[in-house]
Amino acid sequence: MDIRVVFLGTSGSVPTLKRSLPSVVVKCQSNQYMFDCGENTQHQMMKAKVSFHNKMKIFITHLHGDHVLGLPGLLQTMALMDRKEPIQIYGPKGLSKFLLCTKKALNFGLTYQVEINEVLSDGIVYDEEEYQVVATPSNHAVKSYAFAFIEKPRPGKFYPDKAMALGIPVGNLWSKLQRGEEISTPDGKTVKPSDVMGKLRAGRKIVYTGDTKPFDSFAEFAKDADIIIHDCTFDNSLIEKANIDGHSTPCQAAEQAKAANAKQLVISHISARYSDATLLLEEAKKVFPNSILAEDFMEIKLPLIK
Amino acid sequence: MDIRVVFLGTSGSVPTLKRSLPSVVVKCQSNQYMFDCGENTQHQMMKAKVSFHNKMKIFITHLHGDHVLGLPGLLQTMALMDRKEPIQIYGPKGLSKFLLCTKKALNFGLTYQVEINEVLSDGIVYDEEEYQVVATPSNHAVKSYAFAFIEKPRPGKFYPDKAMALGIPVGNLWSKLQRGEEISTPDGKTVKPSDVMGKLRAGRKIVYTGDTKPFDSFAEFAKDADIIIHDCTFDNSLIEKANIDGHSTPCQAAEQAKAANAKQLVISHISARYSDATLLLEEAKKVFPNSILAEDFMEIKLPLIK
Repeated sequence: MDIRVVFLGTSGSVPTLKRSLPSVVVKCQSNQYMFDCGENTQHQMMKAKVSFHNKMKIFITHLHGDHVLGLPGLLQTMALMDRKEPIQIYGPKGLSKFLLCTKKALNFGLTYQVEINEVLSDGIVYDEEEYQVVATPSNHAVKSYAFAFIEKPRPGKFYPDKAMALGIPVGNLWSKLQRGEEISTPDGKTVKPSDVMGKLRAGRKIVYTGDTKPFDSFAEFAKDADIIIHDCTFDNSLIEKANIDGHSTPCQAAEQAKAANAKQLVISHISARYSDATLLLEEAKKVFPNSILAEDFMEIKLPLIK
Repeated sequence: MDIRVVFLGTSGSVPTLKRSLPSVVVKCQSNQYMFDCGENTQHQMMKAKVSFHNKMKIFITHLHGDHVLGLPGLLQTMALMDRKEPIQIYGPKGLSKFLLCTKKALNFGLTYQVEINEVLSDGIVYDEEEYQVVATPSNHAVKSYAFAFIEKPRPGKFYPDKAMALGIPVGNLWSKLQRGEEISTPDGKTVKPSDVMGKLRAGRKIVYTGDTKPFDSFAEFAKDADIIIHDCTFDNSLIEKANIDGHSTPCQAAEQAKAANAKQLVISHISARYSDATLLLEEAKKVFPNSILAEDFMEIKLPLIK
């Protein structure tokens, strides 16, 4: 199945007429994984037809208003829409306090369970059968994380001809091999999955940096990513400002993508000063040609790796 | 000068593709008076070209998310735009706590002063030379206020012919009369302002109910208003639901406008269930013909009363 990456908001700290505040959703069939939730995300979800009822996890990179102020309203709207499915939210220490004080001050009830998980160190923050989300501390003005959404490697291709040739009857033994188990054939031979199957097939990988300056461990963290969605707040000439504010320039974002051997770079978190951000894209492309500029409602489709 | 009423958000509790969450701005030259500040108000301000730097007071009817969740982001954006002008915010008890806990959790600094005034009883909450804002408790699920924006009566028209006929020389004595002071003419006669001026000229009055069921004292509070912007969440057939949730139907809003002898009724806070809200308008017009339906970015001009 395709994985779809939907850009709901691509602005820097201040929204513009064209760009809403940061939020990206990774859609895997009916599962939704949201990264950041700036103000107005609920409205962007409506426009982009992202469901309010599906299974959903939300990952917050850091506790700056532009990345998290859409969360209370989204949770409230979901309740008003009578959502029943629980929701899981992951983010830095302090997220729980923010949500609880808001909920208390505004006196809103929920129709579903909200599980808040504060991320206290790097590593796997979310894990399920097919996918996991891994966090690493990034380099911003406050405690901040970058996230990698990783599809686990899938078993290699199964070759029925090889199984037949080894005298394995169609049925239960085939399933066992496909699940990665060793079996014994009716005539007593031991067969390993690798005897009848191809190599493990790599999963897809999407990295979302949130706000950050470049940092050393990024290349390893984002290694071989299909897509890196990277902070690119200011153009190359404003590198000093970027450094002071904890942001990146196109050149820096592109160097990070190159070092990580990424397939594609998407520059985002575009400062409101660029009514036309072509300059940023041109600067990024000089270093990393497969760069694109994020736009609100842009959608990237990642097909299954065969 | 004209007073302009700009509708930034006209939805009920949940935004729709056409309607953002509640907010209305009354513009008097470069002064702005905002009523409610739902999520996404800052973006709507950009679209409607409402300034982020002008003198501004914000009045919050009640502490439900859909009426107040745009405030933290708006304040933060104003700081990022380097606003210098102080801002005054008025709203129910708890507003201060909400803003402080949000500001603390999200660690944002401000470049200007924010004065929070909790409204603890009815009466005048804001008073200046030309205008005042008066609050009255409304009838919703939580502590809630309706606000009246009132232009103070202006002195009547000055008739130079009358002043000349009474032998008053052009100059200081004319100014005194225009300011409402009694004077003595050079030949010793006493002249009152009413001898040379017309009657006081009524000011303009705009009433904003916020969320409310009808309440008895409203007619007096909103008496002779030029515009009443009234909660009209549900159509007439849902009167029971409106009653339980603390909202009004078109018929109720129209009855309130009629009882108050208002010039115009604007029905707003339209539930997301009405993709076309013509029904609500038709129901209101049956009772109060000069009713209109609020739409995002609608602007009503109130010329100076001559």
